[in-house]
Amino acid sequence: MTLILGNEDVDDLLTMDDVIKALEPAYRNIAEGRAVAGGRADLVSETPYDPDARYWLKMASGIVPDLEVGTVRINSDIVTWPKDGNKLRRVKAPLAPGKRWVGLVLLFSSATGEPLAIFPDGAIQRLRVAGSTGLSIKHMAREDCHVLGLLGTGWQAGAHLEAACAVRPITRVNVFSPTQGHAEKFAEDMSARRGIEVVAAITPEDAVKGADIVVTATNSMNNIFFADWVEPGMHLATIRDGEFETAVLKRVDLLAIHDPGNMGDDHIHAPPGLTIPDLGKEITEVEGFDEILKSPTLAQVVAGQAPARKNADQVTCFLNYHGLGFQFTATGAAFYAKAVEAGRGHELPTEWFTEDVLP
Amino acid sequence: MTLILGNEDVDDLLTMDDVIKALEPAYRNIAEGRAVAGGRADLVSETPYDPDARYWLKMASGIVPDLEVGTVRINSDIVTWPKDGNKLRRVKAPLAPGKRWVGLVLLFSSATGEPLAIFPDGAIQRLRVAGSTGLSIKHMAREDCHVLGLLGTGWQAGAHLEAACAVRPITRVNVFSPTQGHAEKFAEDMSARRGIEVVAAITPEDAVKGADIVVTATNSMNNIFFADWVEPGMHLATIRDGEFETAVLKRVDLLAIHDPGNMGDDHIHAPPGLTIPDLGKEITEVEGFDEILKSPTLAQVVAGQAPARKNADQVTCFLNYHGLGFQFTATGAAFYAKAVEAGRGHELPTEWFTEDVLP
Repeated sequence: MTLILGNEDVDDLLTMDDVIKALEPAYRNIAEGRAVAGGRADLVSETPYDPDARYWLKMASGIVPDLEVGTVRINSDIVTWPKDGNKLRRVKAPLAPGKRWVGLVLLFSSATGEPLAIFPDGAIQRLRVAGSTGLSIKHMAREDCHVLGLLGTGWQAGAHLEAACAVRPITRVNVFSPTQGHAEKFAEDMSARRGIEVVAAITPEDAVKGADIVVTATNSMNNIFFADWVEPGMHLATIRDGEFETAVLKRVDLLAIHDPGNMGDDHIHAPPGLTIPDLGKEITEVEGFDEILKSPTLAQVVAGQAPARKNADQVTCFLNYHGLGFQFTATGAAFYAKAVEAGRGHELPTEWFTEDVLP
Repeated sequence: MTLILGNEDVDDLLTMDDVIKALEPAYRNIAEGRAVAGGRADLVSETPYDPDARYWLKMASGIVPDLEVGTVRINSDIVTWPKDGNKLRRVKAPLAPGKRWVGLVLLFSSATGEPLAIFPDGAIQRLRVAGSTGLSIKHMAREDCHVLGLLGTGWQAGAHLEAACAVRPITRVNVFSPTQGHAEKFAEDMSARRGIEVVAAITPEDAVKGADIVVTATNSMNNIFFADWVEPGMHLATIRDGEFETAVLKRVDLLAIHDPGNMGDDHIHAPPGLTIPDLGKEITEVEGFDEILKSPTLAQVVAGQAPARKNADQVTCFLNYHGLGFQFTATGAAFYAKAVEAGRGHELPTEWFTEDVLP
């Protein structure tokens, strides 16, 4: 049987602890050269939906042999770039029937090749991104981190709060949103949920001032965190190229990235004449970008193959964007095991997704 | 609704004429920079099945905006390399339940992003490979080609016979297999099916001698067609790197390839220590490989952007391997349209493959 699972199954079954426990050995496997990451590709074209929008077909894959699974993640999006004041925002339009988005993970057995499960990528995506930040905190931040400065109040921000709490004794979170009401609601909800002090800050600088850990988890296409705000001993993490002013990186003593091969735009395939408003050029044009590419990967950090923090004053930083397919492999395997155990999902005949001819 | 379709639907509904009609404008779109190809990636790891086997997770994708679709093709295979005498063969082991293989095409709408259909890749794969060879014959071979020399009697060989007949007035096919019985059976079946003379040759050289078109369509990992056998005016096509002795290419006046970016091993991601018996190094080590990469693509040939055959004596050649995902996009769109019209497939709620959260 091939299981069709949903985001609600992820929400019900998979905890942040599960995710961090699943990701940590997979990262180690990557560093040891046992697991495989790769295959990130974005295909971009025009779309009949709107001449200024783009159809964006994105793939990433991974194999974690110890878990006996491989995955392919596919996103099939209509991307638009509405102006928000004088800022440009990237918005995926929910145009599938019922005003829905399309992101799928296909989980295969590396023992038999068979498709074990198909599920949406949304709930897992949130957990794996935040889980990776959690691993960076676990392996790079000071042990005695208590205060989290959080820019952003969306879905990713909430998961990041949980990830930080999973690996450090966080007692206070200062959160900022350009929409003050969002920050207040987030603070109220999270205080209640986690039983810690979560406070809405008036300015982004207030949110990060004095923080041990700073996380930016927004969909902003403009700088929201600046070099002047960096304090000794901070651990920094960002989920989007451009959230950090590039000068921030000059204040960082230990930097970790996902994968140097994944940082540029090489994986984007588009017709030559097609414009793409937000191709992430900024960081690649920075003086010192080549140095950034030489930074250790989070996998190397987790495996102890990278220099460790030397003292309480060093600034550490994880660039948590252009993530890797194997994160879905590890997290997906943990989710699948729990789903099978709980008897979740629609069971379809595996024969529907296999064949008796050899292509 | 998202349709789950099968190879039997392809076999029942899609003709070689349909495939060539679907592929030709898509190739033209690629050359014109309207369609998008790319995203070929192979991830390779160990497999619990056997220490000498490999788990091979392969992806390719494409978008054809004129057809308003994008596709991702995924293969999830256990690959083995048994010895056949002193030759090495590549054999995909059918280990999914019911001794089946795993190859899937996911077809998405580029207007809404929604998954329109999921179907196995086998029957389409056969048609798209042969259909591409057919296009090379249509645009590169002499108009007055009557004799096809065919090395191979498998599934691909049969489709190539049909593709040649679809674009040229073929009256005779000379077919060779190392297993004489296979050639005789193939000759008998195809004679009956096509109403033309199909003859089993005693030697491979007999099969190609005097032929207007030579097609090698085997799974051999050793040279089976040699430079000495090339005759003036021939059109040559091969579906596998290594079928042609590399010196064959020195006898070719007009060469076409799929995509220079697809010819090497760059798309293969494997742990550093993992051995892969048949990584296709041969052609990349050939003197003149860089020249081969400068050859026109079949897309450029089809779009009239490449030099045409000048006379009846020139030798033309198409290297039909490392194909491109957009072939599945074009062929898949044609298949999907026919399947919807015929009311085929299992209808599943599209909600199962979409989501109400934005990852």
